[in-house]
Amino acid sequence: MLRIGIVKESASGERRVAITPDLVPRLLAAGLTVLLETGAGAAARFPDGAYGDAGALIVSADELYAGADIIACVHRPPTSRLRRGQFVIGLLHPDPAYTGDLAARGVTAASLDLVPRTLSAAQPMDALTSQDTVAGYRAVVLAAGAFERFFPLLVTASGTVPPARVLVLGAGVAGLSAIGTARRLGAIVTGYDIRPEARAEIASLGAAVLDLDGEGSGQGGYARALTETEQRDERGVLAAHVARHDVVITTAKVPGRRPPLLVTEAAVKEMRPGAVIVDLAAGELGGNVEVSRPGERLVTENGVIVIGAENLPATMPAAASTAYAHNVCAFLTHVLRDGALASDPDDAIHAAVVFTGGAA
Amino acid sequence: MLRIGIVKESASGERRVAITPDLVPRLLAAGLTVLLETGAGAAARFPDGAYGDAGALIVSADELYAGADIIACVHRPPTSRLRRGQFVIGLLHPDPAYTGDLAARGVTAASLDLVPRTLSAAQPMDALTSQDTVAGYRAVVLAAGAFERFFPLLVTASGTVPPARVLVLGAGVAGLSAIGTARRLGAIVTGYDIRPEARAEIASLGAAVLDLDGEGSGQGGYARALTETEQRDERGVLAAHVARHDVVITTAKVPGRRPPLLVTEAAVKEMRPGAVIVDLAAGELGGNVEVSRPGERLVTENGVIVIGAENLPATMPAAASTAYAHNVCAFLTHVLRDGALASDPDDAIHAAVVFTGGAA
Repeated sequence: MLRIGIVKESASGERRVAITPDLVPRLLAAGLTVLLETGAGAAARFPDGAYGDAGALIVSADELYAGADIIACVHRPPTSRLRRGQFVIGLLHPDPAYTGDLAARGVTAASLDLVPRTLSAAQPMDALTSQDTVAGYRAVVLAAGAFERFFPLLVTASGTVPPARVLVLGAGVAGLSAIGTARRLGAIVTGYDIRPEARAEIASLGAAVLDLDGEGSGQGGYARALTETEQRDERGVLAAHVARHDVVITTAKVPGRRPPLLVTEAAVKEMRPGAVIVDLAAGELGGNVEVSRPGERLVTENGVIVIGAENLPATMPAAASTAYAHNVCAFLTHVLRDGALASDPDDAIHAAVVFTGGAA
Repeated sequence: MLRIGIVKESASGERRVAITPDLVPRLLAAGLTVLLETGAGAAARFPDGAYGDAGALIVSADELYAGADIIACVHRPPTSRLRRGQFVIGLLHPDPAYTGDLAARGVTAASLDLVPRTLSAAQPMDALTSQDTVAGYRAVVLAAGAFERFFPLLVTASGTVPPARVLVLGAGVAGLSAIGTARRLGAIVTGYDIRPEARAEIASLGAAVLDLDGEGSGQGGYARALTETEQRDERGVLAAHVARHDVVITTAKVPGRRPPLLVTEAAVKEMRPGAVIVDLAAGELGGNVEVSRPGERLVTENGVIVIGAENLPATMPAAASTAYAHNVCAFLTHVLRDGALASDPDDAIHAAVVFTGGAA
């Protein structure tokens, strides 16, 4: 009987856990034994007892890494603790060095960031989508918290308050989630994306579409990287729109590359005091907003609040972990046959997601 | 020509300002000269320049207190700076000692917390209502920020997420504002109030009404204070409902008294990890929630997040100041006759709001 181990994440600020207590019975039903590293769910407010009640065995980290056949995680687990024949499933963002390290140890891995996003059978495993849905919602909650006015229109005896005007740049999963949430809260929302198909999705949510010239669909549903000239033109036209909005949420990413710069320092200077920017692309490589810093909230000289939002799913760990656990379970259900990991390189999902040749 | 002075608030954490730049033209049109204490709007992100552009004169604090006939403020201004014949308008919460101090200095004052809330002509001046509307909205934004799951129902490929269940205790202005906002965000909302007329308002917002036995309408639209026995019974029945909710927002106040204790420490212990409480009544005298502390956010041993929300309007200063400025202007428009403060003790609003006999 295969044993799956749920590890305690060690990355700084990471509060998610790969499997939530409510999904333990599903793993048991699939014929697995479930081990939980003690405290693995604590930061997401899932106590050990909740896992124990669901049928998991609570073990130490040493026992987990020694005993588990499958390691369920969010981020890469410590490579030095892995052993030959183990199978790791997580959001591993593999690069050649990492793949080589795992292969050298005889470890097989599945990375849910490699799920083919356009394949409908793979959607239940699409962890980037599930986590971006959280991030987009959270970005609006953060923006509403930082904004010192109302989002909705209010008509009161003390005057009529106009609704907040929200601009969402990039209408992938996170952007669409942000658009839907800002509209729920009563804001007037405009969305922008360089992909024509994304513009249709913005409109389907009832938001206005900002239609600049230019077109930039790329591979796998992502936007292509624009040329330097195209980017400069885009920034110039966007600046005037940015200045007219109360809240700007940026979500534009291009896989494996620096995020495009969409909002320059000069554009931020044209915004009104009290305007709010949330840059969901902020990270080590930079972000969509020139002045944003990952993990920081700053106020510019002209009173614009700029939030460099890093790893937002970790700040809503109960929701993000629950969705992620569904993704992990969906993948495991797909690859488990009679209680064992079945290797099927002809399967499109398997071929895309499993990235070192090994036991699976 | 009367001069009105907009003072810079000195209370700790207070970011509101009594008059916003957009209302300066209205005061000028009423025949007033407008003085602004330099920096008075800065914390609400209204720079001096915005007032200057609107026609105000930017002056020092000394110049303001020396030169103004009318002092517009949120909290009590320093009594020592006031002089004979001045008229103060603010949220002054007068007590006999304060009234005596002002009378001794020959100062007349109008306190917008004394506006008769049931008189429809007074509604545009009702600053408690305008500020409570902000507080109720803000309480939900805070709760959504603290809650580590989604408010709305989500149906996704990664599973169906049930909506958050929100319970609002006390359905005055703040409670109704919270109910409306939580419903906007997609939560399942239940409201509770001991006044039958408030229950009808909960229902009119589309929320469920929690109907316990007992009835407690009081004077002026407020709830009456329940007896000790009634309160104990109420707490006991509420506890079971509190435990079933993800988010609890408490807003019950009784004028001039300690807020009723609605949620005991034992009730909080029965809540789930990750549940959120926002106590809008938290203050020096205590709050509706036994474990809340004003101005603090704490996490209980069982993982419940308890926010003692103190002066929420000050954390949304642009919106709160704009609404408050409308209230101040509405009152001034009511009492100004031909550019002078008219005294009319037969007027119900004047009689209720102006509390020291003086020049007005």
